[in-house]
Formats: sequence, C-alpha cells, structure tokens
Amino acid sequence: MNEKTTEDLEKLRDLIDGVDQQLLHLLRKRLDLVAQVGAVKHSAGLPIYAPQREAAMLGKRRAEAEAMNISPQLIEDILRRLMRESYLNEKDVGFKQVKQDVGNVVIVGGEGQLGRLFGQMLTLSGYPVKTLDKDDWAQADTLFAEAGLVIVTVPISITCDVIRNKLTQLPEGCILADLTSIKTEPMAAMLAAHNGPVLGMHPMFGPDVGSLAKQVVVVCHGREQEKYQWLLEQIEIWGARLVEAEPERHDKAMQLVQAMRHFSSFVYGLNLCKEQADIDTLLQFSSPIYRLELAMVGRLFAQSPELYADIIFAQQDSMEAIGDYLENYQRALELLKSGDRQGFIDSFSQVATWFGDFAPQFQQESRAMLQSVNDMKSN
Amino acid sequence: MNEKTTEDLEKLRDLIDGVDQQLLHLLRKRLDLVAQVGAVKHSAGLPIYAPQREAAMLGKRRAEAEAMNISPQLIEDILRRLMRESYLNEKDVGFKQVKQDVGNVVIVGGEGQLGRLFGQMLTLSGYPVKTLDKDDWAQADTLFAEAGLVIVTVPISITCDVIRNKLTQLPEGCILADLTSIKTEPMAAMLAAHNGPVLGMHPMFGPDVGSLAKQVVVVCHGREQEKYQWLLEQIEIWGARLVEAEPERHDKAMQLVQAMRHFSSFVYGLNLCKEQADIDTLLQFSSPIYRLELAMVGRLFAQSPELYADIIFAQQDSMEAIGDYLENYQRALELLKSGDRQGFIDSFSQVATWFGDFAPQFQQESRAMLQSVNDMKSN
Repeated sequence: MNEKTTEDLEKLRDLIDGVDQQLLHLLRKRLDLVAQVGAVKHSAGLPIYAPQREAAMLGKRRAEAEAMNISPQLIEDILRRLMRESYLNEKDVGFKQVKQDVGNVVIVGGEGQLGRLFGQMLTLSGYPVKTLDKDDWAQADTLFAEAGLVIVTVPISITCDVIRNKLTQLPEGCILADLTSIKTEPMAAMLAAHNGPVLGMHPMFGPDVGSLAKQVVVVCHGREQEKYQWLLEQIEIWGARLVEAEPERHDKAMQLVQAMRHFSSFVYGLNLCKEQADIDTLLQFSSPIYRLELAMVGRLFAQSPELYADIIFAQQDSMEAIGDYLENYQRALELLKSGDRQGFIDSFSQVATWFGDFAPQFQQESRAMLQSVNDMKSN
Repeated sequence: MNEKTTEDLEKLRDLIDGVDQQLLHLLRKRLDLVAQVGAVKHSAGLPIYAPQREAAMLGKRRAEAEAMNISPQLIEDILRRLMRESYLNEKDVGFKQVKQDVGNVVIVGGEGQLGRLFGQMLTLSGYPVKTLDKDDWAQADTLFAEAGLVIVTVPISITCDVIRNKLTQLPEGCILADLTSIKTEPMAAMLAAHNGPVLGMHPMFGPDVGSLAKQVVVVCHGREQEKYQWLLEQIEIWGARLVEAEPERHDKAMQLVQAMRHFSSFVYGLNLCKEQADIDTLLQFSSPIYRLELAMVGRLFAQSPELYADIIFAQQDSMEAIGDYLENYQRALELLKSGDRQGFIDSFSQVATWFGDFAPQFQQESRAMLQSVNDMKSN
C-alpha cells in the first residue's frame, strides 16, 4: 500500500470517526427520548410494546430512507435494534402496577431462574414478592395466609406433587398459577388442589432474555378469569404477547417443537462427541448456517443436565413423537442406502407441498437471520 | 388513554421523528464515506474486509459509547449492520482486477446459482467470463482454446464425469478449478484430467448471499499454486476468508456438519408433515428458538429436490455418519423409554465435558442470535 493510499484512507477514516461521534450523540438523544416515552407510558399504564405504532413508525422511516437512496431494510434493522435497547432500559423505570392490594405474591420455586425473573418483574411493578424455595416450607402457612397470588415454578418433575401436597390450603380468593412447560397435568392438579382462581402459563422464552418485550406467554384459562385478568394485563405491560390455548393443544404442539428440539439437539451433541469431532475444525469451516447450528446445540450443554432430564422425562407423551421421528429417520436412511433417489425426491416434494407458502417465507426469514449471524463474525 | 397522555406522547414522538431524520442523514453520509474508502481500496487492490481495522474501530466506538453510558454492544451491532450494507454496495464500484490477460474465464455450469454468483464477481473484477451450460458443449472447444481459467460448478452427481469426459483437453497453462461441496473425488478427477494448475474450492455459503464479505471459501491445493495464486487473492479482495484444508479432512468435517444438517432437516420436515403439524399453531407458540428452527428446516424445502438429492446421495461416506447418528438416537431413546434418568444425565455431562469452554461460548453466541431473531418480530 503506497503512501498516497494510506493518506487517503486515513483522511476518510477520520471523517468516518467524526460521523460516528455524531451517531453516538444521536443514539444517546434517542434513547433518552424513548425513556421519556417509557415514563409517560409507565404512569399511564400502557404496554411498552405497541406493535401498531412500531409498524407505522418503521413504515415511515422505510419510505424516507428510500427517498434518500438508503436501503429501507438498513434503517428498519437499526431501529429494531434500538428498540430492543429501549425495552431493556424500561426496567430502570419500573412498570405500572395494574392492581393494588392484591396481597403478597408468593413464588414457589422463587430461587429458580424463571422464578427469579418473574419475581423481579413483579417487584419492578410494585408487588410485594415473597419467595418460597425448598427449604422454606416451614413458613409456608404464614406466607400463604397473606397471599393473593401464588406462582408455582418448581422443577417440572415435582410440579404436580408440590401442587397436590402443598397447595391445597390457599385462601379462597387467592390466584394459583404455574409456569410449567407442559400444561395438561399441572392445570388438572391446580384445579383439583384449589377452589379459587386458577391460571396456567408457559413463558415461551429462556430466563436469559433481558426483556419480555415481544416474547410470547401461552395462557391456559383455569377458573374465574375475571379474578386474574389484572395479572394478564400486567404481563402485557411488560411487553409480552399472550397466546391463549387449550392445555392439550399446547402440549401436542410442544411435543413437536420443544421435546423434539431438546432431544434432537441432545443426540446431535452426543453424536459429535462420539465421533470425536474437532470443534475447532468445524468452526474454521463453519458457514453461518453451521455455526448457528453448532451454537444452538452447544447452548444446550451449557445448561443443567438435571433440568433437561426433568424436561425430557416429564413429557412421556412426547416419547411417541420422538419414536415417530426415529421411524421417519430410519425410512429416509433406507432410501439413501437403497440409492432410491426418486423416492427421496418424491418425499421431499411431498413435504415441500405441505409447507406451501411457508417454505419461501421461511427461506426469506432465515436469510435475514443468517445475515445477522454473519455480521457477528469478527475473524 | 387520557388527552394529557396522548399529547405528551405525540410531542415526544415528534422529537423522535426529528432525531430519526438526522439519523438517516448521518447514515447516508457514512455510507458515502465508506463508498469512497471502497473506491480507494479498489484502485489500490486492497481487500474490502479488513478484520484488524474493523476490530480496532469497533473497540474505539465501544469505549466511546461506554463513556456516554450507551451499551457498547448497541453501537457494535449497529456498526456491524452498517458494514454489511457497505459490503453490499462495494459491488457497485466493482473490484480491482488482480491479474490482467488471463484469457477467458469459462464457467462450466454457469447457469447454476453458484456459477452465476462467481460469474458476476469475476465480471465485476474485469475478467472476460464465458458460461458453458449443458446445451453449449458444441462450442466447448472454441471456448476452452481461449481459456485461462475453467471453473466447474455442475450438479455434484455429474461433476466427476464432466471432469473426466469433457475437461481433458484444456490448454497446458489453463487453471482447472471446481466449487463442489465434496473435495476428495473431484480433486482426484481434476488432477487426472488436466496436467496444468488445479485448484479445489468449496464456498461455505449459499448463492443467496449479497456479498462475499466474511464468507469462508475452503481451498484445496492441487497443482502449481503459483499459477492460481492470483485467483485466491482475487477472492480475498471480494472479502472472503480462505481456509486451506486437505480434501479428506474437509470431507470428513463436512459429513459431520453438512450432510448431517441436510439430512436431519429433511427428516425433521418429513416428520412435521407426517404428524400433520399445524404450522400456524407452531408459529403462534413460537419462541425465537423454535421459530429459528422452523425457518432453518422450512428453508430447505423452498429449494430444489434434485439439488438436495444430488448433495445427499453424492456423499456416500456420509451415510456412515448418518447411520451412527441413528444408532446414537436409538440408544438415547432407550434411556428415555427405560426411564433411565441417571443414564441420561451421565451422557449429558459427558458431552458437556467434551464441549468444554465451547458450551458457554455457544450459549453466549446463540443468545445474541436469538435476540436479533426476536428483534425481527413484528406482531
């Protein structure tokens, strides 16, 4: 690289540095303004996530960008990233308390990751939160006596037993709710153990999310919805989207995605381990799609074996789904071994037809996902 | 929402709109400056992707952000997204041509997606590109007579035959290269068919990438590297990262990631189809992680069945890997069926130990990936 080039590049880079300074100041300004929006919403008790407003705003920006010959997708991606930041900051202001004097909120299993997350959100919303963990059963009666809401979030393997054995003496008007990733059995157990309001929930996200904005919480109505409606509104104020479902329908869908996902990832990692794969080599060769896959599998093994054993062993019904998958895998492998190329193409086309318009939609979505994975690369 | 609130929100939103106007102008300015950097690099023949410079710049910005109480990750993510945009724009300027008078570049299979992508990149770099597709073999001799570089990118099922039968009469000094996703057999075929320079490559990305920046191209050296070194430099100028590998080592690694990935995704889709899953329901319930998974599976079925049949059937050796996976799956399912919780926990811990520090690293990476997937949600 000759001197002239070096000089030119340095000049330009200084100019870029200057632009980035202005960019930082603009970001600071925007974050502060959005924080003020948050404060206003907070005092008015409005949800932090307003899909329509967001869509309208993004639409305007996209149009303005196009007029300036800037890719609309660029400004949308940047603004979406900024919104995430603002959602995270909402926590600093706290959240509007939907209902006063509900009494204590007791979180059974409050020391677990998910229990802590909900405890934190409820505290940020002004509710008096008491946690009851495995060693605290001595004070249970005192805690329950004052309780207006009891949330069960203990290991899935003992959830139903805890409900059946420990939660039969709650105050009449107290809300009994759970956060278990299966719903049929825990719902039945809660309805049997408690005569008051009953609510089943399944937060569709890991405890490592910084904010509940845009996250999904599946809601199964148990009994006396009008009594726990405030809790659902509270969760919406945290930014989450509520999806109502029948326990059975929820569990069936979960078997197909969740149990399958956990089990396949487990076997995938087990397989890599048994094959003594060299992760460094795999990463060297890794295209965004394989890096993503490795990350998704590796992620599982950073977590507690007991937790996963509980999740997988709890879903006895999912064994059928897992077994079906095995059969389909065997049949597909037969096609390969017998060199039945046409047979493979036929089933492929059959599945493609079944996916219908979702296939191209998923292709587009995954492209965006893979691009942002590629953006993260640093070497 | 009362009038006061509406009023306050409107005021703040007008201010935010104003900030976003300035943001757009700043983006426009930065894109223009980076385009000038591209032009300087172009004339100097420097690669568009400069990892060190990028890392240094991001480091400075992160520090400045922290000083302003802005999350360093926010500015890094925004700048990375901006860089992607700039890489895409590089195409408009074209690329520095590393070597003059190489003669024609003939792309055998030039009508395929990958062939078109490489044809486009080479044309943007000033090389005379001729494509030779299945119906053009009549003019083959004329095309080859003038050729300084022949790139084979035909369906994997016929690659070796095409090399063996059609590419034996290339000019002595002509470079013979391929882009096949397996390397051992095509390399052997090329070395046998041609006495001149031979180069094997495997682009580790789909033809739908907008730019080669940060993408990986695996390189297998065949013969007379000094004669094709310019091509490797050219690819680096496009922003790609070259990873050298022995054909066998490459193919073994690919069996574990690529073949497995394709086949598992295929079976996963087949399974959803056979279970008659309701995709709408799955998406309603979808947490970022399942949405990502569905998108990755669905993506496969938006593509050509023949293409995938070719890829999967071409890798006979991978059948072993796929078979091993099946066995591990069966064994794991046995643990489930026999209710051997401890056995499950033991293998889980064994795999976790094997992943070692990669597990937490992958957990962190995947968190970032999942966050950006969540950002994309619009309802």
